[in-house]
Amino acid sequence: METSVLTVKTGSSASVVDLTPDVADFVRGKGDGLVNVFVPHATAGVAIIEIGAGSDRDLLMSLDNLLPKDNRWTHEHGSPGHGRDHVMPAFVAPSISIPVEADMMKLGTWQSIVLVDLNIDNPERRVRMSFLTG
Amino acid sequence: METSVLTVKTGSSASVVDLTPDVADFVRGKGDGLVNVFVPHATAGVAIIEIGAGSDRDLLMSLDNLLPKDNRWTHEHGSPGHGRDHVMPAFVAPSISIPVEADMMKLGTWQSIVLVDLNIDNPERRVRMSFLTG
Amino acid sequence: METSVLTVKTGSSASVVDLTPDVADFVRGKGDGLVNVFVPHATAGVAIIEIGAGSDRDLLMSLDNLLPKDNRWTHEHGSPGHGRDHVMPAFVAPSISIPVEADMMKLGTWQSIVLVDLNIDNPERRVRMSFLTG
Repeated sequence: METSVLTVKTGSSASVVDLTPDVADFVRGKGDGLVNVFVPHATAGVAIIEIGAGSDRDLLMSLDNLLPKDNRWTHEHGSPGHGRDHVMPAFVAPSISIPVEADMMKLGTWQSIVLVDLNIDNPERRVRMSFLTG
Repeated sequence: METSVLTVKTGSSASVVDLTPDVADFVRGKGDGLVNVFVPHATAGVAIIEIGAGSDRDLLMSLDNLLPKDNRWTHEHGSPGHGRDHVMPAFVAPSISIPVEADMMKLGTWQSIVLVDLNIDNPERRVRMSFLTG
Repeated sequence: METSVLTVKTGSSASVVDLTPDVADFVRGKGDGLVNVFVPHATAGVAIIEIGAGSDRDLLMSLDNLLPKDNRWTHEHGSPGHGRDHVMPAFVAPSISIPVEADMMKLGTWQSIVLVDLNIDNPERRVRMSFLTG
């Protein structure tokens, strides 16, 4: 298995960061297999959505509605409402796998791989890409 | 890695379509490994749930509650409320992997693999199955 | 592919059970690869979250809000509100994969692998771990 770790700047606000070019680079020359994208952080996840037409903003709005940034959470560390950041990965998991054929991910036309990071206290994130030839 | 693409009719309403027989066919004769089911569309996901006792309808109702089909969305293309279809894959991901032993998926008795498709503008979907022998 | 099935006690209330030590044991001595954790049950899921600071309780609270334990569900078997247990795996999927390097899962410091089980009628669960060397 080949594996590589990327560092991604996510800044100081909730963010959706495109990882597609980096993962495409990683699988180049590797033939057929499955690439796994894994975020080793407890307040981030990986999703596959369309970007560039507002859906990234829509996702953050949905997360604000579904997991409100208020005082309901038992988890009390960090910024106010930070507890919800720790629940998010149960719904937007930190691991996703994409099939690869002839050096290319078989994503649909409108699919991008994104890092979803609600945590405003941690401006830098790592992402591990792993390739299985099967 | 062996891979194969299926075409699935999803019709013109939000739908939950059973993929289990097709994936079971695909893994037959392949021994032990992991099968990945991947939907290359930005408004569909893959889930593993019970079907046949109403949970497929319950899932669609939940999605209507959690991601309402109204005008809140930034994404504005397609039918009214279509923006929510683009957020769904962040929660119901387009990729899932199932262990296979001796040619059989090791699903539980009540588990079925389903395509979840909210998009009413796209009546046909592709599903990619990939087998890794590990 | 090496595979092994674990039996986990989840008791008679909704629960979040740490699987990390068991999966760490399973991957020991296996080198590099990907470990898949799969729950063959229709009312349970696998998540990767922080535990020990309240986020496990926060997750159950979120699930109570997002999928209320009331009479809205078509699925009518089991305890009142049990229908929601069957919708949960669409959001907290029963399958997750974690990269392994040099016999160790590459989890972040605050990440634990947990079984999420809402079903109060089923006190014992199986978990299948599968290792792919890629």
